[in-house]
Amino acid sequence: MNDIPAIKSHDIILASQSPRRQHLLKELGINFTVRIKEVPELYPDYLKEEAIAVYLAKLKADAFLSELNEHELLITADTIVWVNGQVLGKPTDYDDAFRMLKILSGTMHTVYTGVCLITQQKEKTFWASTQVYFRQLGDHEIEYYLNSHQPYDKAGAYGIQEWIGYVGVERINGSYFNVMGLPIQKLYDELTNF
Amino acid sequence: MNDIPAIKSHDIILASQSPRRQHLLKELGINFTVRIKEVPELYPDYLKEEAIAVYLAKLKADAFLSELNEHELLITADTIVWVNGQVLGKPTDYDDAFRMLKILSGTMHTVYTGVCLITQQKEKTFWASTQVYFRQLGDHEIEYYLNSHQPYDKAGAYGIQEWIGYVGVERINGSYFNVMGLPIQKLYDELTNF
Repeated sequence: MNDIPAIKSHDIILASQSPRRQHLLKELGINFTVRIKEVPELYPDYLKEEAIAVYLAKLKADAFLSELNEHELLITADTIVWVNGQVLGKPTDYDDAFRMLKILSGTMHTVYTGVCLITQQKEKTFWASTQVYFRQLGDHEIEYYLNSHQPYDKAGAYGIQEWIGYVGVERINGSYFNVMGLPIQKLYDELTNF
Repeated sequence: MNDIPAIKSHDIILASQSPRRQHLLKELGINFTVRIKEVPELYPDYLKEEAIAVYLAKLKADAFLSELNEHELLITADTIVWVNGQVLGKPTDYDDAFRMLKILSGTMHTVYTGVCLITQQKEKTFWASTQVYFRQLGDHEIEYYLNSHQPYDKAGAYGIQEWIGYVGVERINGSYFNVMGLPIQKLYDELTNF
């Protein structure tokens, strides 16, 4: 199924250290390489919800622009958790992760992923949102999860594909893979129409 | 987290050949064994939607009842796809699978999983439903999927965690793991309260 023109005619590069994103892109059956650059994830205060994720995805892409050759198509992405009018990013330590999971417990939050596709000639950004409903989590459950997993590289301090997602997430509304970090069906569509 | 009384005081048995169900239960961190019995999946014509899945889960459980010892807690499950007032079960062959995916293409269907927990003393059934939205699938995509995967053990002829799920499912409303065959969060709750 790699007869998609954008995929056939480009070398695909994923600019993400996230093993989840790498796994998801692999599942599409696309050949790609990974290229990493540290970009400080700073954004203007006035941005909200999906605008933050899109801004950061574009920021990451622009950092690579001058280095792309004419055959390369670069994919960047940024995922944020939005709850009660605030962003939860990656937790700084155990206490911060505990605090985040207490905020998510017993309520709905929205996961936004912004994605940017960029070549020398063209740039396209898009995003997806998924509502995630956690049941009330016991403190002992949060402690067990944080001690058995180390979700410090994950926005909101959880992986939906990990124990806390299995026992705590009642339902979602939207794309499951978006919560993992990449709205893979939309990405496939966007690559098809790039 | 195996301090759940029903789990501590019972030997858990999963009566399912499905590698997805076995994987999901393992992710809960529960020790269990697998026991298989062939039970013809027949149900009365008048049943619809979740009633079919619950009936079949109970049918599978009852087949084991006389063989359970006092320490055993058996889990059975049945998953069906319901679309346009009809059930899609497991496809019989390539043409049947192709027909099913053409029905699912471009529309919403509902996945129901019925689950039965049974011991010598007690029986509990419950179910979960998830709405799944497929975009329009091209015939070449269906062909590619059927040739690269063999979804003949899956209700509705697809696995949401396989290529066709990645590229074709726009969104879901409900539990993702329920679509894979086991509503794992609800199962955890029911085991906690058994």
